[in-house]
Amino acid sequence: PEKPANYNSSLIRHGGRGMTLEQEINESNQYYLAHEIAVIHKKPTPVQIVKVDYPKRSAAVIREAYFRRPSTTDYNGIYRGRYIDFDAKETKETTRFPLDNFHEHQVEHMRSCLKQGGICFGLIKFVTLDQLYLLKASDLIHYWDQQGDPHGRKSIPLAAFQQQAIPVAYRLNPTIAYLDAVDQLI
Amino acid sequence: PEKPANYNSSLIRHGGRGMTLEQEINESNQYYLAHEIAVIHKKPTPVQIVKVDYPKRSAAVIREAYFRRPSTTDYNGIYRGRYIDFDAKETKETTRFPLDNFHEHQVEHMRSCLKQGGICFGLIKFVTLDQLYLLKASDLIHYWDQQGDPHGRKSIPLAAFQQQAIPVAYRLNPTIAYLDAVDQLI
Ligand SMILES: [Mg+2]
Ligand SMILES: [Mg+2]
Repeated sequence: PEKPANYNSSLIRHGGRGMTLEQEINESNQYYLAHEIAVIHKKPTPVQIVKVDYPKRSAAVIREAYFRRPSTTDYNGIYRGRYIDFDAKETKETTRFPLDNFHEHQVEHMRSCLKQGGICFGLIKFVTLDQLYLLKASDLIHYWDQQGDPHGRKSIPLAAFQQQAIPVAYRLNPTIAYLDAVDQLI
Repeated sequence: PEKPANYNSSLIRHGGRGMTLEQEINESNQYYLAHEIAVIHKKPTPVQIVKVDYPKRSAAVIREAYFRRPSTTDYNGIYRGRYIDFDAKETKETTRFPLDNFHEHQVEHMRSCLKQGGICFGLIKFVTLDQLYLLKASDLIHYWDQQGDPHGRKSIPLAAFQQQAIPVAYRLNPTIAYLDAVDQLI
């Protein structure tokens, strides 16, 4: 698909706000929720809690805890009656997206959700280029699986995004209109 | 719907294992995932992280964090192409389920998901009675909303569960076959 005409200028306007991709997605999800377009949330960071203090007359304080590896992608929810599941990744690379940005269990989770009929994808941002793409999980899985081949690549070339992925434009409301790109998958 | 003939005996067998409802659901979800029946996960407990230590040569330790109020229900995922969303609650009451077991934002979340075409419900266990029910979100919302009426009740009577909800049986695999009850909603 063609990039919208204002793609780059929007990106420049956006860049000035200095948000992370996660913040941009959360803001967009708030817009979608408030306008009854979709219900999509980021899952909390999984933490293993070891020690909690319960001070008198104030809130419980977690005093020892560890980050756990998530067993799924970060975002899921419902849009137009369909189950939506995705993860967001940023890279500073300018010519390729290294596959080790994804974890095995995230790819397996997408594989499982696809089998159940879910709409699964990655939202991948080339931060240096200021370009954001929606990459279908089936394409991601294709690249993931070929890593095991004799001459398998450990990354997805930028050219593949330009050919196969759907560019996501920056706007004002929502910040990133990624459900417009999802509409092209449904 | 009628209770299965072995309902009570199963419950007794089950009771001996001493799991919480959350553990029972997690175990059932693992079964459903392994058998490619559904992909449903509990969301991590939301925690606001304030202070993290990064010791040399070992894992990061969270030294100060606080429990945050969840903005959604605890469980969601996909089953037979449908978006599934629910919360689980236990009560020791024997004649009624107090509505204050749910939080306003959880009920609002279910309302939003229903509007998008999701399958939403509560899994509610009367632990003293050893009875587990699936209550449709639309029924839950009906009771939630009538709390504001002049003679509004602050609880749902057990009789209403016996009449409107779907009993969920304990089994071996999965521990609780709650998707059998979901089949009656689809
Ligand atoms: Mg992520
Ligand atoms: Mg809960």
